[in-house]
Amino acid sequence: MELFTVEGIPEIRPGDNIPSHVEKNIDLIDGDIILIASTIISKSEGRATNLSNFTPSKRAESIAKSLESLTGKSKDPRFAQAILDESSEVLIESPFILCRTHFGHICVNAGIDRSNTGSHDILLLPIDPSHSAMGLKKQFSTDVSVIITDTCGRPFRYGQVGVAIGWAGISAHRDWRGKHDLIGHELEVTVQCILDELASAANLLMGEGDGGTPVVIVRNWDFGPFPENQDLFRKPEDDVVRKALRRWAS
Amino acid sequence: MELFTVEGIPEIRPGDNIPSHVEKNIDLIDGDIILIASTIISKSEGRATNLSNFTPSKRAESIAKSLESLTGKSKDPRFAQAILDESSEVLIESPFILCRTHFGHICVNAGIDRSNTGSHDILLLPIDPSHSAMGLKKQFSTDVSVIITDTCGRPFRYGQVGVAIGWAGISAHRDWRGKHDLIGHELEVTVQCILDELASAANLLMGEGDGGTPVVIVRNWDFGPFPENQDLFRKPEDDVVRKALRRWAS
Repeated sequence: MELFTVEGIPEIRPGDNIPSHVEKNIDLIDGDIILIASTIISKSEGRATNLSNFTPSKRAESIAKSLESLTGKSKDPRFAQAILDESSEVLIESPFILCRTHFGHICVNAGIDRSNTGSHDILLLPIDPSHSAMGLKKQFSTDVSVIITDTCGRPFRYGQVGVAIGWAGISAHRDWRGKHDLIGHELEVTVQCILDELASAANLLMGEGDGGTPVVIVRNWDFGPFPENQDLFRKPEDDVVRKALRRWAS
Repeated sequence: MELFTVEGIPEIRPGDNIPSHVEKNIDLIDGDIILIASTIISKSEGRATNLSNFTPSKRAESIAKSLESLTGKSKDPRFAQAILDESSEVLIESPFILCRTHFGHICVNAGIDRSNTGSHDILLLPIDPSHSAMGLKKQFSTDVSVIITDTCGRPFRYGQVGVAIGWAGISAHRDWRGKHDLIGHELEVTVQCILDELASAANLLMGEGDGGTPVVIVRNWDFGPFPENQDLFRKPEDDVVRKALRRWAS
């Protein structure tokens, strides 16, 4: 299994064709997995915007005020409003805003970026990353899979890791249920989230900041004989932690 | 960056020297990162054991009983006792047992395995995986890093991913704080947990079950100029979700 970055991707602007930038700089082969940082997808889709476009509601004002008094740092209620607009549900409002985006991803600040935003204030996530991934997949001239990545913090463990937020042409999981161990016992629960594992692997090469390389190729990795399984974002009834957070926040 | 499995690792028994099995089957070079599934470390350390060695306390009986009535499946109170023995704190008891191991890792069932346990009933995690990793690192004849991996479920997202539970010779994180984005703005919080990203990447090749390959090498990956940072397991005061779970469970 090899991973490598695609060099030579320019600063992306609205309307840019990312697959053509990739193919200009690298020879792809069938089966390659193309991992693309959501930042450049957002930029190509015109999702960089300014805080002046957001008029804070009372709720946004109140969230910003309570974060301000908690952290001692000034918080822009327009930023809180952008987060509310991008969310279908707010799980917790303090000490940070954890919410569910309209496409199902649970993350801090609805994944809105304030670094690497070019001449704009903020960068929103793509509206529907799996839809974006499908569109990109079709534009490549080889038979590739596309995964759109972001980075996310986690409970229990320090540090952010790469995760998938949209994908096309690949299963979310390898489902080992019903398979057997070395001595023939059936395996316990083992649904392996290969999407997130691939996103984490790619994030080791993408980096952040001014040396960032937003496209990584995974080559020569064999998925194996598993049925397709496309559920990435937990349903509320399957999510004990989400239940606990709701109870705690209310 | 390349990842490859080490073929030819035999079934591991108590006292086996894992580094010598690895070096018999592959030529390592300085800078290689050796990722080893915790299962074989546990086996080499004699952590495979039988449920008959556990006498359930009242608490274990009660946990097993309540899980039984919730799931409709029979639960062995001796297994609950093994989990309690391996834990310093139980975060939730139902609908599954989420706990903190004595070395700080938060996971379901204290990471105790019931598959791939050889002729024993269960396989406990290594007592102190970072201590194990340090011992292994010293036994390799080249200058390598060692990461001991396990797989773990997560809130919000379906599926398990590879995570690190012990390590030696490598920083847990790349800490981008204070670095700048492409146009010179300081990056927001970005502490990247490379340990877990490497473990996830390796897990793509390790697999589960009867075709499992428990050792993966990562080669040609440049960590970059970052200061060392060794905190992997969140302190309670830095963990909102843990607070919420405690409140919820009580």
